[in-house]
Amino acid sequence: MTKSWLSIPSGSHFSLANIPFGIITHSRFQVPRIAVAVGEHALDVNTFAQKGGFSKCAGLDSSALKVFTEQSLNAFAALGRSHHRTVRNYLRDVFRADTPYPEVLQANEGLKNEALIPLSEVQNHLPLTIGDYTDFFAGRNHAHNVGTLFRGPANALNPNYNHVPVAYHGRASSVVVSGTPLNRPWGQVLPAPGATTPVFKPCAKLDIELELGMFISRGNKLGQPINVDDAEGHIFGYVLMNDWSARDVQQWEYVPLGPFNAKNFGTTISAWVVLADALEPFKTAGLTNEVELQDYLKETKKDNVVDINLEVALITENGDENVISKTSSKNLLWSWPQMVAHHSITGCNLRTGDLLGSGTISGFEAGTQGSILEQTLGGKTPLELKGGEKRSFVNDGDTIRIKGVAGSVDGELVGFGECVGKILAPISRS
Amino acid sequence: MTKSWLSIPSGSHFSLANIPFGIITHSRFQVPRIAVAVGEHALDVNTFAQKGGFSKCAGLDSSALKVFTEQSLNAFAALGRSHHRTVRNYLRDVFRADTPYPEVLQANEGLKNEALIPLSEVQNHLPLTIGDYTDFFAGRNHAHNVGTLFRGPANALNPNYNHVPVAYHGRASSVVVSGTPLNRPWGQVLPAPGATTPVFKPCAKLDIELELGMFISRGNKLGQPINVDDAEGHIFGYVLMNDWSARDVQQWEYVPLGPFNAKNFGTTISAWVVLADALEPFKTAGLTNEVELQDYLKETKKDNVVDINLEVALITENGDENVISKTSSKNLLWSWPQMVAHHSITGCNLRTGDLLGSGTISGFEAGTQGSILEQTLGGKTPLELKGGEKRSFVNDGDTIRIKGVAGSVDGELVGFGECVGKILAPISRS
Repeated sequence: MTKSWLSIPSGSHFSLANIPFGIITHSRFQVPRIAVAVGEHALDVNTFAQKGGFSKCAGLDSSALKVFTEQSLNAFAALGRSHHRTVRNYLRDVFRADTPYPEVLQANEGLKNEALIPLSEVQNHLPLTIGDYTDFFAGRNHAHNVGTLFRGPANALNPNYNHVPVAYHGRASSVVVSGTPLNRPWGQVLPAPGATTPVFKPCAKLDIELELGMFISRGNKLGQPINVDDAEGHIFGYVLMNDWSARDVQQWEYVPLGPFNAKNFGTTISAWVVLADALEPFKTAGLTNEVELQDYLKETKKDNVVDINLEVALITENGDENVISKTSSKNLLWSWPQMVAHHSITGCNLRTGDLLGSGTISGFEAGTQGSILEQTLGGKTPLELKGGEKRSFVNDGDTIRIKGVAGSVDGELVGFGECVGKILAPISRS
Repeated sequence: MTKSWLSIPSGSHFSLANIPFGIITHSRFQVPRIAVAVGEHALDVNTFAQKGGFSKCAGLDSSALKVFTEQSLNAFAALGRSHHRTVRNYLRDVFRADTPYPEVLQANEGLKNEALIPLSEVQNHLPLTIGDYTDFFAGRNHAHNVGTLFRGPANALNPNYNHVPVAYHGRASSVVVSGTPLNRPWGQVLPAPGATTPVFKPCAKLDIELELGMFISRGNKLGQPINVDDAEGHIFGYVLMNDWSARDVQQWEYVPLGPFNAKNFGTTISAWVVLADALEPFKTAGLTNEVELQDYLKETKKDNVVDINLEVALITENGDENVISKTSSKNLLWSWPQMVAHHSITGCNLRTGDLLGSGTISGFEAGTQGSILEQTLGGKTPLELKGGEKRSFVNDGDTIRIKGVAGSVDGELVGFGECVGKILAPISRS
């Protein structure tokens, strides 16, 4: 375990094996700044860079340093994976108990006071300016669970499922950072099974979708697909994601063009981007695919999903915490490089800051599914919560909190912190 | 008819009743600039503004003038409709034969030489930086034609169609400006009807979709829907659109989340944004809806689609021009304000530069449909072109050219120019 001169509590998601990047403001500065999370502190990287913090960092020239003055991580992401590695390794060295550069921060009281800020004092913002947001459907257990609900187990998966990394284009504008409350949306829904005339009312089946999100570092030119074996070099890092879903709206609207209003009122992501390098030790195989893949989806180097322990809690307005799901992000049929390769195989251009979602991550057993739809069999078997409360879907005042942490390497955790969202009363129609 | 001191050929799309905005470069400047099109010239608005061209324009302060130094129209769009009106009216006055401000441009030889550039010399670029691109399905005749092909006339329209302005989130990154060639995409397709195992090959059913596109000027905050009667104030202007579609890819991939790779390889839009005000005289009623609408879709002021004469030509590699469709953009079930209201009814936030597509615009009769799928009944009755050529779908080397022009007011046309795209050979798989 790599010890730090900075106090990092045992169990912290932000050990020296992590060094995730985010965007913060603070009472001292209202213009967003780049930061990394270490233990219970944020390092204001903007200030750190301007005060010479990177002076001992080999391989980072002054033009590259300018990216740390930006208000989003896009320019840093666009530098490419080798630069991310250089910066992450250097910052880890700066914080090591046996740092080769004590003068940079450990022994620099002025810079420590200015640039190290308790996480409890910072406000997080969206880490990147998102171009396009695409949501995949790679969680085959979820697809199977939901398909079984709607079509029975024999026809649970659609014929294309094991061949195509199915996805849809999502809404980028309403992706919000953890902590942002959302109002329950109104929408057109059918009043009863078999009805043909909709009514307009607040969504009555507000659901969650437990997902992992991935940000693109460098993109590709239009007409030039990314080879599956090159895709890893286009991955910046990962976040937790809750793709809120209005199931009743979705059911009425989704034929034939897919979900639209059912998904566009908000998608919550965690604040700190865990870099691809930090998750390398946790790469593993995803779900086994029985079919012969098309060549463009065949990976030379396999094991390209990541094994992150995920936990979903529903917190009622009185503060009762109910863990409703535990699973792993390895429950995906398609790896991240396969998603990138499929997305771009038509020539579609990905850009720095694009966000790709995994699709809902579920196991099969009770308490391992990533949506309430699955857990309650479509609302029929409500969740039993503390205090005698029951939930078929999410109520007003409920908070959904996702945590994600990768198993320890030498006692150091690589975690995401939390992805939190509270559902408020329906949008006012005054 | 408003005459100009500048020669504007009869039949020009860019009369003084129009004044559309775009983004150009020229051999003299490689950094994109804002321009308007007048007759056969572009006015370099950046230079015009910097050289005092707006000195006689009441109601435009110096901070507003800064928007004309941008490389996209977003900042201008964000100023809001009243500013667009002020600027458009003023520029029209500047170009009138009886201009009250001859000293601004007509008699200013230096500025005329510098800022008035023949359209044949300019290169157009995307007019706005697009945030999200949403494509509606408001062309009911198209939905009916395609539904009839797949399900027969009795079930042509899905049960939700007349109630919900159906839409899907599209791919913003691959929206390209008129004149940009696109390579034929590869994709997974079923080799024959009834097959269950796909093959990977170049798309064999490359189709077009004739659409109108609309850009958002001012957006709304997350959680605060735009009222249908306020929506007009959020509309910046319109462009022609060709939403290229790989029908064989679409057929295999689209269940259950809608089209993805079938659409994400490219969408072509015309270069000049015709402002909402310029199309006010051409507003009319759309298609009649028989169902009782939900309140949020009921408009106080009706007649909110626009009547633009649309024409699609397929130009073969030898230069033969074949007009394959003529129709009007009034063939929509949902008005533009209804689309805006529906999109945001969940609280979804629209942003300046968001692009909304109408969906394919078709009539019922032969030669009025906006897709080749409809015209050839799914490829079964090929189009007969000049020189004995036939087309079931688009061939490599074919160019699709859409023109759009609103009927004349006092002899002045309000047109879009052209929306042109050529399909090149399949993406190289080397």
